[in-house]
Amino acid sequence: MDAFEEYSYILFIALILLSTKILGLVTKKMKLPQVVGALCAGVILGPAVLNIVKDTEFISELSELGVIVLMFTAGLTTDIKELKKTGKASFVIALLGVIVPLLGGFGLAAAMGIGKGDDLNCSPMLQHVFIGVILTATSVSITVETLKELGKLSTRAGNAILGAAIIDDILGIIALTLITSLADTSVHVITVLLKIAAFFALAIGCAAAYHIVFTKWRKRDKRDLRRHVIISFVFCLLMAFLAELFGVADITGAFVAGLAISSEKDVKYISNRFETLSYMFLSPVFFASIGLSMSNLNMNSKMVLFTVLLLAVAILTKIIGCGFGAKLCKYSNKESMQIAMGMISRGEVALIVAAKGQKLGLMGDEVFAPIIIMVVATTILTPVFLKFVFKSSAPEAEVKDDLLRSVEERYQYEQDLQELSRSGKK
Amino acid sequence: MDAFEEYSYILFIALILLSTKILGLVTKKMKLPQVVGALCAGVILGPAVLNIVKDTEFISELSELGVIVLMFTAGLTTDIKELKKTGKASFVIALLGVIVPLLGGFGLAAAMGIGKGDDLNCSPMLQHVFIGVILTATSVSITVETLKELGKLSTRAGNAILGAAIIDDILGIIALTLITSLADTSVHVITVLLKIAAFFALAIGCAAAYHIVFTKWRKRDKRDLRRHVIISFVFCLLMAFLAELFGVADITGAFVAGLAISSEKDVKYISNRFETLSYMFLSPVFFASIGLSMSNLNMNSKMVLFTVLLLAVAILTKIIGCGFGAKLCKYSNKESMQIAMGMISRGEVALIVAAKGQKLGLMGDEVFAPIIIMVVATTILTPVFLKFVFKSSAPEAEVKDDLLRSVEERYQYEQDLQELSRSGKK
Repeated sequence: MDAFEEYSYILFIALILLSTKILGLVTKKMKLPQVVGALCAGVILGPAVLNIVKDTEFISELSELGVIVLMFTAGLTTDIKELKKTGKASFVIALLGVIVPLLGGFGLAAAMGIGKGDDLNCSPMLQHVFIGVILTATSVSITVETLKELGKLSTRAGNAILGAAIIDDILGIIALTLITSLADTSVHVITVLLKIAAFFALAIGCAAAYHIVFTKWRKRDKRDLRRHVIISFVFCLLMAFLAELFGVADITGAFVAGLAISSEKDVKYISNRFETLSYMFLSPVFFASIGLSMSNLNMNSKMVLFTVLLLAVAILTKIIGCGFGAKLCKYSNKESMQIAMGMISRGEVALIVAAKGQKLGLMGDEVFAPIIIMVVATTILTPVFLKFVFKSSAPEAEVKDDLLRSVEERYQYEQDLQELSRSGKK
Repeated sequence: MDAFEEYSYILFIALILLSTKILGLVTKKMKLPQVVGALCAGVILGPAVLNIVKDTEFISELSELGVIVLMFTAGLTTDIKELKKTGKASFVIALLGVIVPLLGGFGLAAAMGIGKGDDLNCSPMLQHVFIGVILTATSVSITVETLKELGKLSTRAGNAILGAAIIDDILGIIALTLITSLADTSVHVITVLLKIAAFFALAIGCAAAYHIVFTKWRKRDKRDLRRHVIISFVFCLLMAFLAELFGVADITGAFVAGLAISSEKDVKYISNRFETLSYMFLSPVFFASIGLSMSNLNMNSKMVLFTVLLLAVAILTKIIGCGFGAKLCKYSNKESMQIAMGMISRGEVALIVAAKGQKLGLMGDEVFAPIIIMVVATTILTPVFLKFVFKSSAPEAEVKDDLLRSVEERYQYEQDLQELSRSGKK
């Protein structure tokens, strides 16, 4: 039918939103993170199972916007001032929690000869490093939820996890920037590094210019915050585009743009609006599109083995890296274990990195399924591990540092918004 | 440059958001509606002037989603219960305010032989009727703003305008549904009417089913309103898609979906979220895309004459129709004039209708520029006229009916949201 074809993109968006939400709620009911459900929705709608939704240019460009907005929001909600307060401990935990998985992932991929027979234009060496980069990611949203539920978020360990996760994000972005820039093998390493440096210099300049213009403008008009939302969106998109022109990943540009604005006033309103754009439209498209790109769920025995080992390496390297880091910073054995468990989940961060790598040819299609499985498994296992290591611990004194307070405030804001809508007459 | 081409859609979105906002603010400063600025931005970025932004499939599909969300929000914010309270007067004013412009537009187009030499597959007769349908639209947002500024919104005339505008929207949708369904000349008129009837029957069934499931579901979980936002979005998209399958315009389906949900609880939160999606992303793309589709600003002398006459007919027919309607309902001469002036602005509603008609081949490219000019001119002139007819009026007793109260409440909600974000520590 003609109208069916012509308007199929409307149907696609409806099916993506519906299935990601329903499966997300199902996984939530099973105490699993919603992103697992969203991924499954994509796999089911895509060529691997039902083959209803096509991965059109419209979907793929929307999903790219989705990941840009996700990273921008991540940057926005990273408060640089708070970052300074996270202290040495968080830094050491994060640093070792990045280096050990990076080496572990690289070692495993190299030992198993991943990507050798592939027709990607990247060297196998670069592909092995990329597996390591994926393993560096940490997503603490599921950890935060679990700890909240256990009433353990305001412990010493809980605070350390929040701080380390922020620094982990930044170290991860640096690793991603380096590896994606190196993906273009036609350019010399020195040129790549110069281009990255040039981009960051320009980015700092843009951020400063934005800050000056923005502050001036806001002084003159205090009424409507909506225009600030739009202007910050423009800034985010331009920085993402600029990054690509310098051979840097667009999501790096978006994250940097978010960081640049994160200390402005009214950031709470602005980030809430971007979260809205994200949850109601763009991020379901992004997560589903990852599932859509999996065309084949069959794995040969080598890839099954790789999947199992990848999962083991993913868990062990974070435990060793973060646990050792915590121990170095004088946390007790028990606390070190709690911190390490809180950092295992890879969540959406690893997916963002993996999707980028696949697009750039840093990763063969064959390793995509193992990585998705690793991400899902670490994300599912984290709450289980956390409940185990926090179970027997006696009630502790509450430690609420600024970081925790700002996480709670942001959560409270959305609650207040919803309350406000109920308080009216209708 | 390769990256430039590949990521140009990010740049396009950035340029559209930036230019529509800047020009929107400029026009606002000049006391003109922001939509005028957004339109100009599209014309400037498009082939008519700078030719920077291409009207790609991505942009055109996004803009279609934009207009769907606009119409859905219009439906959402139309309270059916309130509608019953608007009373006979509003209905008579709206009905005559639709019939007279419809006849006027048709007569003018027929008299000037518009669309005769065109290679559209619709009959000239249908094209003439379509010009009439465009003239039926009313957009009272600029009227509401002007009256608020003058402190005259809570007069008898102000209340009548609000009520009549809602009914005008519904009559306009009916006219649009009929004419767009008739655009497919391969189908017999009886079949068309049967298909429309079938769609509305199905729509009522879906709305009832949605209401039952939704109410049940909401009872079980009161916590998070976000999922309601997503589910209502899915409902909107599915109804839009379904409409197209029945040969009915997708925006009709979206409007009906909005109407169906408008009496649910929490609609204030839901509509605020859709307004966010609209203003920060989708509707700038829609308005700019109208400008982008204007490739040629030159007009021959016949079209200049048509433009002038169209504008005159647009203004006079609303004055005659609505003014006479008000007079019939026992409003004073002065009040009738005030009501008539408040209904002249065509605003975004006429643009939505025109864009749809152009896509379906109901309207030749040559009449697009005259229509845009008519829309912009009526929208600019409305505040001028309103100030004139309200100027000398003595202070009146405040009349606040429920309709006015709900308009004010919705406005207040966004203010409260912004206030909330300022009241926190940051």
